Amino acid sequence: MGNFQIAVCQMEVLESKEKNLEKAQNLICEASSNGADIVVLPEMFNCPYNNNFFPQYAEEFSGITTKLLSKLAKEQKIYIIGGSIPEREGEKIYNTSYIFDRNGELLNRHRKVHLFDVDIEDGIKFNESDILDYGNNVTVIETEFCKIGIAICYDMRFPELMKLMALKGAEIIIVPAAFNMTTGPAHWHYLSKVRALDNQVYFVTASPSRNLDSSYVAYGHSLIIDPWGNIISEAGIEEEIIYGYIDLERVKKIRQELPLLKHMRTDIYKIDELFID
Amino acid sequence: MGNFQIAVCQMEVLESKEKNLEKAQNLICEASSNGADIVVLPEMFNCPYNNNFFPQYAEEFSGITTKLLSKLAKEQKIYIIGGSIPEREGEKIYNTSYIFDRNGELLNRHRKVHLFDVDIEDGIKFNESDILDYGNNVTVIETEFCKIGIAICYDMRFPELMKLMALKGAEIIIVPAAFNMTTGPAHWHYLSKVRALDNQVYFVTASPSRNLDSSYVAYGHSLIIDPWGNIISEAGIEEEIIYGYIDLERVKKIRQELPLLKHMRTDIYKIDELFID
Repeated sequence: MGNFQIAVCQMEVLESKEKNLEKAQNLICEASSNGADIVVLPEMFNCPYNNNFFPQYAEEFSGITTKLLSKLAKEQKIYIIGGSIPEREGEKIYNTSYIFDRNGELLNRHRKVHLFDVDIEDGIKFNESDILDYGNNVTVIETEFCKIGIAICYDMRFPELMKLMALKGAEIIIVPAAFNMTTGPAHWHYLSKVRALDNQVYFVTASPSRNLDSSYVAYGHSLIIDPWGNIISEAGIEEEIIYGYIDLERVKKIRQELPLLKHMRTDIYKIDELFID
Repeated sequence: MGNFQIAVCQMEVLESKEKNLEKAQNLICEASSNGADIVVLPEMFNCPYNNNFFPQYAEEFSGITTKLLSKLAKEQKIYIIGGSIPEREGEKIYNTSYIFDRNGELLNRHRKVHLFDVDIEDGIKFNESDILDYGNNVTVIETEFCKIGIAICYDMRFPELMKLMALKGAEIIIVPAAFNMTTGPAHWHYLSKVRALDNQVYFVTASPSRNLDSSYVAYGHSLIIDPWGNIISEAGIEEEIIYGYIDLERVKKIRQELPLLKHMRTDIYKIDELFID
């Protein structure tokens, strides 16, 4: 399989769901017309990142948002990693990424496993678990190119989840994520690079653009990073699409030259996935 | 327990073991006279980092190097994290860090768990396992201040080992390490910061200074990093001592504000230490 192209839509998220969907559609079509095989949207791309909005914007599957993504994936013949949206199932609400293949079929969904409950002095305070429920799965999808791990934002803080995706065969990890103006400048680039490095994968993050009118100001700076930790493509803070070519031979080469996955001392420590669903 | 001070001696390592020991003694005494409670030496501080030298420089415990460290720890009433030296035990040679308490008693030793066998195109090539044997332990020592995890260089590439030290109670992780001119510029600062961040510990690295006459040129840039990922103190490339105050209240505060260790989904993934010794 030759090189292929990933596009990250660093979309501005507004209060109007209708406008957000229109914007997502335009960006997806633009990315596709520029040759992207896989198009990634940001975390909570159809809804402001705010606990007060999640119940109101939440959709059961399939709803207006996922129907649109499925239609676009099929029309454009691309993979869509649908950022995330609030998902309703019965009484529960999840922060969920829906993933569609080139035929518009739902490949999988990832429900955010680690909820963002933090309270930093003179910084960000947020408590997702007041409203949201926990996902319980390590999510790795199969594509015609390679396996791809999917996680959402705060999930990327947890090296065990990232490593499990690599051990399950992921050569790319994609993370729709909305870091903020406290944790973004402090940690975003470092974490993204080291997740690429440690797991010897292409590491892709998709942030909303920085909307200063929003109650939660996203950091922006969506990234496509290669397995050596080099930034291939980086967004600024405005709405834009970034593109990166993925070269799976580079994954193989780096895993051979610096064999971190092979050198794990699995006789000394063991990392296991448990299944509670 | 109030604040206390760690000193890192970024020492130039020469071919003469005698000169290296004299230099180590001088630096330790200087750090102690400046108020350091814990003094850290670099990886392979008594021996050039070169497979050809390890057998010749290797010492059984207790040998000339460890006797000196023990004497200095007792005289100066300080903890010494003795970087590392080639250790001989029977037919085997290890890359070993000896740790002495304020009474000059051996607290523990850490034998490098992950051996550096890499071959990077147009970059570093090294094969430690041609000569050295593998350590098999996760090493956490108890001091009057807190628990401290000890690892050596390539060990810090493995997030599972780092996390296990944090889970065993380490609030500081100290890593004598000699990154090189390929991996140093590419990865050193990123990895060090993220190990501090992920494990919410003070993360301390001790490199030899950059000796261009050596067959293996160390990167330098020894670091003392706080649990938020901020660099408290950083060496350049020359021989020097850097100092940093450790504030354990800051560890507690950050673990409370951004509770990464608490938020681990131990119902979804499990990381275990195994015991093979």
